[in-house]
Amino acid sequence: MLFFTQCFGAVLDLIHLRFQHYKAKRVFSAAGQLVCVVNPTHSLKYAPTRCAAAQASTEQGIPPPCHHHEAVHDPQLVPCTCPLFSCPWEGHLEVVVSHLRQTHRINILQGAEIVFLATDMHLPAPTDWIIMHSCLGHQFLLVLRKQEKYEGHPQFFATMMLIGTPTQADNFTYRLELNRNQRRLKWEATPRSILECVDSVISDGDCLVLNTSLAQLFSDNGSLAIGIAITTSKVHSSEAEM
Amino acid sequence: MLFFTQCFGAVLDLIHLRFQHYKAKRVFSAAGQLVCVVNPTHSLKYAPTRCAAAQASTEQGIPPPCHHHEAVHDPQLVPCTCPLFSCPWEGHLEVVVSHLRQTHRINILQGAEIVFLATDMHLPAPTDWIIMHSCLGHQFLLVLRKQEKYEGHPQFFATMMLIGTPTQADNFTYRLELNRNQRRLKWEATPRSILECVDSVISDGDCLVLNTSLAQLFSDNGSLAIGIAITTSKVHSSEAEM
Repeated sequence: MLFFTQCFGAVLDLIHLRFQHYKAKRVFSAAGQLVCVVNPTHSLKYAPTRCAAAQASTEQGIPPPCHHHEAVHDPQLVPCTCPLFSCPWEGHLEVVVSHLRQTHRINILQGAEIVFLATDMHLPAPTDWIIMHSCLGHQFLLVLRKQEKYEGHPQFFATMMLIGTPTQADNFTYRLELNRNQRRLKWEATPRSILECVDSVISDGDCLVLNTSLAQLFSDNGSLAIGIAITTSKVHSSEAEM
Repeated sequence: MLFFTQCFGAVLDLIHLRFQHYKAKRVFSAAGQLVCVVNPTHSLKYAPTRCAAAQASTEQGIPPPCHHHEAVHDPQLVPCTCPLFSCPWEGHLEVVVSHLRQTHRINILQGAEIVFLATDMHLPAPTDWIIMHSCLGHQFLLVLRKQEKYEGHPQFFATMMLIGTPTQADNFTYRLELNRNQRRLKWEATPRSILECVDSVISDGDCLVLNTSLAQLFSDNGSLAIGIAITTSKVHSSEAEM
């Protein structure tokens, strides 16, 4: 009887741990790789009041307007590049990262190769999963978005943006990899600069695109693991061969 | 003057060569890789009369019915697996390849790694590009299909089927790779058996899926090059890591 009581206690502990797992962004290491659990923006707390209207419009299915070029008066200043809110902040490129961390509570991770584990994939579109990634002396923003480009047919779009200029972005290649159920999907590209609009990258479809059925095949218990690697650019050798 | 006349002659020759290029399936070798030029089914000539109705329905946007399980009476016999026509033929699995070659004029290529060069990507959906691929002692059918899953939004779907049983198919892994404009997209999976319906694989989206905008980025002069490689299956080592 004592054995069963202990088992029941252990199960309760596991359920509690599982609950904690879904409550916060967590980082842990699995088989030498840094795994970052990223919750959707529906779980994002402490959103600044000035962003509430934009957040509400996002939740109603209206993406926040892309107003990068409208807001800049001083060419030295860049607008807030957070894809979640149409935030009125503007500042120098060097302080964008601290603004994203402090105001928008976007986490930052170190490491050349990480695993981005997006939870609650079943949540309705539009939903975003966002993390910053510090690597090779630069910071990158990884955006996974669930969006209905065609009404009633949500798709997942994943892209990586450099928090830097387009010229700096040309020096890098990023790779996103999904691997599960005897299927593997890899996307490699040059990151776009954060000065370009993430919304237009996604609407152009120039990123990793997944239909819901394929996302389900790659998901485990409602979470999607995306392996991320960033390298300095080199000419794709096999391009010439093809 | 003579120089201009010669130039004009050379241009005419080039146009003629280009025309020839679009008229037939061609195979050539580039940098050690076998490149196979595959025209869409709109150019397919000599279609058997008995398939005319099915072809007409395909051209009108109605995919031919998937009637594999209906037509088989003798369990030793399999129906025609050609994705283009709802053909009444049935026979043993061993003679499917010769039926596809002789009746449906589908070409067959040898080699572990080939490049499938699909022409005329701009043609309206539904359109198919089909080739057979002989490798590792088996024959595979590669199907690239342009289809409108969502009205007004054509997409490209690519998959590989083994001309064999599902148990035999489990022994292989196929890879499709697109590589151009500093972007690379790779899809790896276990091929499905030809006894399953190619239409259902595509409607499930369990294959390489490309939006039109991405297909254009990977295209060169209206042709899409897909690198194909087939290997015997092994456990995806990095799956456990993720």
